[in-house]
Amino acid sequence: MKEEERDNYYVQGLAVPETPEPGAEPKPWSKTAIVGQARPRVDAYERVSGTAIYPSDYTFANMLYGAILRCPHPHARVKKIDISGARQIDGVHGVLADTTTGGDIRWPYVMQWPYEAEKISKLFDSHCRFEGDAVAAVAAATPCQAMDGVRAIKVDYEVLPFVADERQALKPDAAKVHDDSNQVNKQTYSRGNVEQGFGEADVVLEKTFRTACELHTPLELHGCVANWDGDRLTIWESTQGVYAIQSKVAELLGLPLSKVRVIGHYLGGAFGSKLQPGKYTVIAALLARQTGRPVKLFLAREETFLVVGNRPPANMTIKAGIKKDGTLTALEFTGIATGGAYPAGGMTLLDWLVRDLYTCPHVKTETTDAYINGGPARPFRAPGHPQCSWALEQIIDDLAVAIGMDPVELRFKNIPTVSQGREGTPPYTTTGLEECITKGAEAFGWQQARQRTAAGRKEKGHLKRGVGMGSCVWFAGGGGPPSTMIVKLFSDGSVNLNMGASDIGTGTKTIMAMVVAEELGIKPEMIQIEHGDTGTTQYATSSGGSKTVPTEAPTVRSATIEVKRQLLSMAAVDLAADPADLRYNGQYIEVAGAGSRKIKITDITKLKKRGVVVGVGYRGPNPENKVINPFGAQFCEVEVNIKTGEVRIVRFLGAHESGRVMNRLTFDNQVFGGITMGIGLGMTEFRVLDTNRTGKMVNRNWHDYKLPTALDVPADMISIAIEMPDSEANNTGA
Amino acid sequence: MKEEERDNYYVQGLAVPETPEPGAEPKPWSKTAIVGQARPRVDAYERVSGTAIYPSDYTFANMLYGAILRCPHPHARVKKIDISGARQIDGVHGVLADTTTGGDIRWPYVMQWPYEAEKISKLFDSHCRFEGDAVAAVAAATPCQAMDGVRAIKVDYEVLPFVADERQALKPDAAKVHDDSNQVNKQTYSRGNVEQGFGEADVVLEKTFRTACELHTPLELHGCVANWDGDRLTIWESTQGVYAIQSKVAELLGLPLSKVRVIGHYLGGAFGSKLQPGKYTVIAALLARQTGRPVKLFLAREETFLVVGNRPPANMTIKAGIKKDGTLTALEFTGIATGGAYPAGGMTLLDWLVRDLYTCPHVKTETTDAYINGGPARPFRAPGHPQCSWALEQIIDDLAVAIGMDPVELRFKNIPTVSQGREGTPPYTTTGLEECITKGAEAFGWQQARQRTAAGRKEKGHLKRGVGMGSCVWFAGGGGPPSTMIVKLFSDGSVNLNMGASDIGTGTKTIMAMVVAEELGIKPEMIQIEHGDTGTTQYATSSGGSKTVPTEAPTVRSATIEVKRQLLSMAAVDLAADPADLRYNGQYIEVAGAGSRKIKITDITKLKKRGVVVGVGYRGPNPENKVINPFGAQFCEVEVNIKTGEVRIVRFLGAHESGRVMNRLTFDNQVFGGITMGIGLGMTEFRVLDTNRTGKMVNRNWHDYKLPTALDVPADMISIAIEMPDSEANNTGA
Repeated sequence: MKEEERDNYYVQGLAVPETPEPGAEPKPWSKTAIVGQARPRVDAYERVSGTAIYPSDYTFANMLYGAILRCPHPHARVKKIDISGARQIDGVHGVLADTTTGGDIRWPYVMQWPYEAEKISKLFDSHCRFEGDAVAAVAAATPCQAMDGVRAIKVDYEVLPFVADERQALKPDAAKVHDDSNQVNKQTYSRGNVEQGFGEADVVLEKTFRTACELHTPLELHGCVANWDGDRLTIWESTQGVYAIQSKVAELLGLPLSKVRVIGHYLGGAFGSKLQPGKYTVIAALLARQTGRPVKLFLAREETFLVVGNRPPANMTIKAGIKKDGTLTALEFTGIATGGAYPAGGMTLLDWLVRDLYTCPHVKTETTDAYINGGPARPFRAPGHPQCSWALEQIIDDLAVAIGMDPVELRFKNIPTVSQGREGTPPYTTTGLEECITKGAEAFGWQQARQRTAAGRKEKGHLKRGVGMGSCVWFAGGGGPPSTMIVKLFSDGSVNLNMGASDIGTGTKTIMAMVVAEELGIKPEMIQIEHGDTGTTQYATSSGGSKTVPTEAPTVRSATIEVKRQLLSMAAVDLAADPADLRYNGQYIEVAGAGSRKIKITDITKLKKRGVVVGVGYRGPNPENKVINPFGAQFCEVEVNIKTGEVRIVRFLGAHESGRVMNRLTFDNQVFGGITMGIGLGMTEFRVLDTNRTGKMVNRNWHDYKLPTALDVPADMISIAIEMPDSEANNTGA
Repeated sequence: MKEEERDNYYVQGLAVPETPEPGAEPKPWSKTAIVGQARPRVDAYERVSGTAIYPSDYTFANMLYGAILRCPHPHARVKKIDISGARQIDGVHGVLADTTTGGDIRWPYVMQWPYEAEKISKLFDSHCRFEGDAVAAVAAATPCQAMDGVRAIKVDYEVLPFVADERQALKPDAAKVHDDSNQVNKQTYSRGNVEQGFGEADVVLEKTFRTACELHTPLELHGCVANWDGDRLTIWESTQGVYAIQSKVAELLGLPLSKVRVIGHYLGGAFGSKLQPGKYTVIAALLARQTGRPVKLFLAREETFLVVGNRPPANMTIKAGIKKDGTLTALEFTGIATGGAYPAGGMTLLDWLVRDLYTCPHVKTETTDAYINGGPARPFRAPGHPQCSWALEQIIDDLAVAIGMDPVELRFKNIPTVSQGREGTPPYTTTGLEECITKGAEAFGWQQARQRTAAGRKEKGHLKRGVGMGSCVWFAGGGGPPSTMIVKLFSDGSVNLNMGASDIGTGTKTIMAMVVAEELGIKPEMIQIEHGDTGTTQYATSSGGSKTVPTEAPTVRSATIEVKRQLLSMAAVDLAADPADLRYNGQYIEVAGAGSRKIKITDITKLKKRGVVVGVGYRGPNPENKVINPFGAQFCEVEVNIKTGEVRIVRFLGAHESGRVMNRLTFDNQVFGGITMGIGLGMTEFRVLDTNRTGKMVNRNWHDYKLPTALDVPADMISIAIEMPDSEANNTGA
């Protein structure tokens, strides 16, 4: 199908017709009318027209604006704070500072009857361990007055020696970030016997790799609006999970969960950096309590570069052994990473691909996390995976060269069917890696491209081409309990869907509406979604890790099935029939085998009487001792200017086995977004700390920190969906 | 107990201890720990501190203000509208007018894909039938600009003859409000044979009474804020029932119910006048659609006097027969009332007390409703009842004088136990009338007061005292299905209560929290309520008619019991026991008879895993062929200045059998409020229409329309609660 033709389908919200492969078995889901279509988002109009209200758009009467005073040094101790200047600034209504360092505000003073306050001792720590650590905060009538207030606070710092590189941090003479060693954690893993494995190998290679620190820079800044109604706190936060914010804030402020309402309806990007509340969340709540007014506290762009998270830098050494026939015999991995100045899982999943991507009997890994005087690590679109992939896939390519085998061929030799890195090596419900590589290579024209670019490299001229590929598995992705959802059917047959999960921009709301529409046989336009609100919507874990749709879709389907069950039971009264003999048929419920005995849904007496039918749905468990992971393969062609070193990506193809594709439009866009972010990490994005002189970040803005733009990514991006029936990964249940 | 002592209990939220009567059976509910207490409202702090956000408080960024052009004549025809002047006014963004009368805005033009618009032909009717009928509307950046815009619209009216009195309206030569007769409706009722009844009587009296038109003047004005998110309309309305607003607006605008979200969290008074959307609701929605911005449209105080409702004037003739022993033999009633210029149930329930308050074998009634050029009637704190009571209770007193019997004694002779006015004369589950009169008379000191005031009247001086009493039954009050509620228990044991019903100022939220707290054994402070939102809360009928607590309390109890059932089932896994053997014990669930085998609620594994437990509750049906009605008796002592005619109410006592008193504090306040409103109707409140010359209302403000103030009601008001066990009126169920 031509691009324009496909676009036309997208615009109309129709399913892109599949071209059936000759002789192929029909897929079990080929009968669905709506699920699987390429549909525009249910909130597309709001998003593109500017009427969607993001947390950063909220404005309330009488609202104040918060701002945070941040330590300008990578490592310092606050000796004295004088907040009197801030109180002189026009419009300043509240100041928060720690009295033990000289501020005159006692806190936590805010929580009184009927709750006991927990001490939030580390909100403002007089020992500042990275540039941007919070020192004090101000609430004022305008954002500029709040910033003026912050600037008017006088702080006397004792500047301390710093360390800003994880490799230096592990040296014995390095400055200490905390009192003890800078080594946070060290973990080891092993299976088989790598020495034996290297002994069996025909070729053994060892190489060291480093990936830079990549920063989360979502379009919407981090922050919230906080307001108190009596003893109840409401927070409108830009977040991936309202329940995660609720539980942490309730714990910190000593409030019952029911008294902390967190609302997050839209989100302008997060990528893992908005899974938890920030200090800004608690600060906004305390300032709102202090001033008795709503307080809006969104960070400035510069602050988000410093404090909201990063994919930590990683130093990785891999030793790999292989037989001439392409069989991997052993992998040994050593990784050093850093979560920044506080425990933040700097090395999380850093060794995972070594453990699990390819079949290999002998594996040993060691990962070390070190403190530095730097901002915190956060989950960032598959923690650890891109870093490890960078190292592993390069050495695999090197091994291919060493044994004279096509890199694709080598990977085919080592396709796993069980998750080797996990206890008990449980099988995958499906392993799509081989099909991803096969279909991807075919669509990319791998063989032809290899030959063409190799031939081209022998020709004259300074522009040379090259092709490469890589495989991947994602550690999670199958979703799972807990999740609760409610589907409420109104007496006119229209539906309200009540879901706690956030739609972090991936199209979750649209897919949930499609599932309900499919199951009920109604138009998605009849469905309205309420979501992301701990006060009024149901429990969900945070959205992230590619697990939202597989967690929530079976849940909403279960709720819809419960609505249908109740409708059948109600219609049975009208039809004087056994519910078991009734069939739900979209607009009607009919007696099986007696099509004339039927009733319109909207005519059911009990429905009209009750006003609504409410179905509660739960996410059922996943199959025991099995693993549901998605696989993928990427192929890329680049052009290199061998005079200047400039690299241009000519084309990129991603082939992904991600389970069933619910909405082809949002699926493809997720793949394209992932490719773009990978290009950023590989080519242009890196945090620069002045490790020797000042320890400060020198590229804390979008001018100096280079995100890929439309000009940096190829126009020729292709997404291939590998859909494999998986009867074990569609659980609904109680 | 002394007043101060009782107040002290109220402030502390403790139950007022009952003084047990010697030999009295303990009441079945005497064991409840929380229900029955006098507790301050759960939202008391918000209400008194000014932080409660009422619909009229909502402010949104970019919001416009709406205003309505109203016909200044009681009867006129719009010949031409010129809106060009309005468009010249600074800040005017939208104008709505009917093109057929010369405005240049076509409507309904607003509803497009994917919905077909219904024609809302009567939003602006060129035939204006009362002073205040809507003619056009404007949206502007400020309220004053909107009013300027309205004033700049030029309307050419043909002024028509009018009729402003229901008695004149029924005359053949009266001006016609509609094309046909002004008689809207006439209804008759009869049982027995009144002629026979009057024949059996020793005394027959006939008298004619009139009650004036009383206006709804709640503190919060009528209105809403409307906003569109794409194809979904959200309305924040000051309303008694969000679902009623939703269904009417959806019907008028041709939208699915799921696409109309109505939110009404607080309400500053309604008394029956906010049971339905106003034209202002639809106008605000259309102006918001036209301008693409939120529109706030709250009426001015003067407009509410003209258009939002009234208790219609009633003309009532009663003929009554009685035997010397006090047995009523016959009642004949003729009533004429008016719903205003449009069908609005002017005579609703006007004859009810004649049919049902006293035992009487022979009854005949005839009620007639007439159109006049006046504002619409609306339900107003027991439609028809106070009017009829005014007539009936006066003639009963006259009968007592005629046969020389104490008025209390006469009423005792005619206490009903079945609802005679209803088909099949079904029995009441309880009839508290006798006990109300007995206890009331005793507490009031009826006999002594009669003697004392009679003696006083023979003394010199111009200040004389008198006492009187009256009985009542309310036609409804037992509540009933449908109602759905959800109780959500968080993993820390705190609770969210999700209810669609509005708390119209009567304390519904507080009582629901008390029921949940009672049933779960937790503090009411652990409960947060979300209510009054068609998007996120469950189905409820409108709050009114004294049926909210009896409808919703069993529903929320049912939801709570379902939560407990699930907790037992989850705890059974931890305790390795049969759920049937487990007992819920507030903080713990324990194995019956094995107190040591127990688990804390917050330790239940499945609860921690699932995050929340959700219980859905429904209101069960009432007993068949029985009637649940509340009864009451009021006693009053007045002082009359026989020189000036001035009347001062010295003291007032209300004794009410209203079922179980859930919260003694809010119960008493409802009684005091009712007494105050009765004093207004009886003594100071009446709409004045200039019936002869202009047909216009002459007292359309709080200066000229006299609401009773604190100085007009007695400091000595006493509320007595008659609680009678009623095992049939506490249904929970599916």
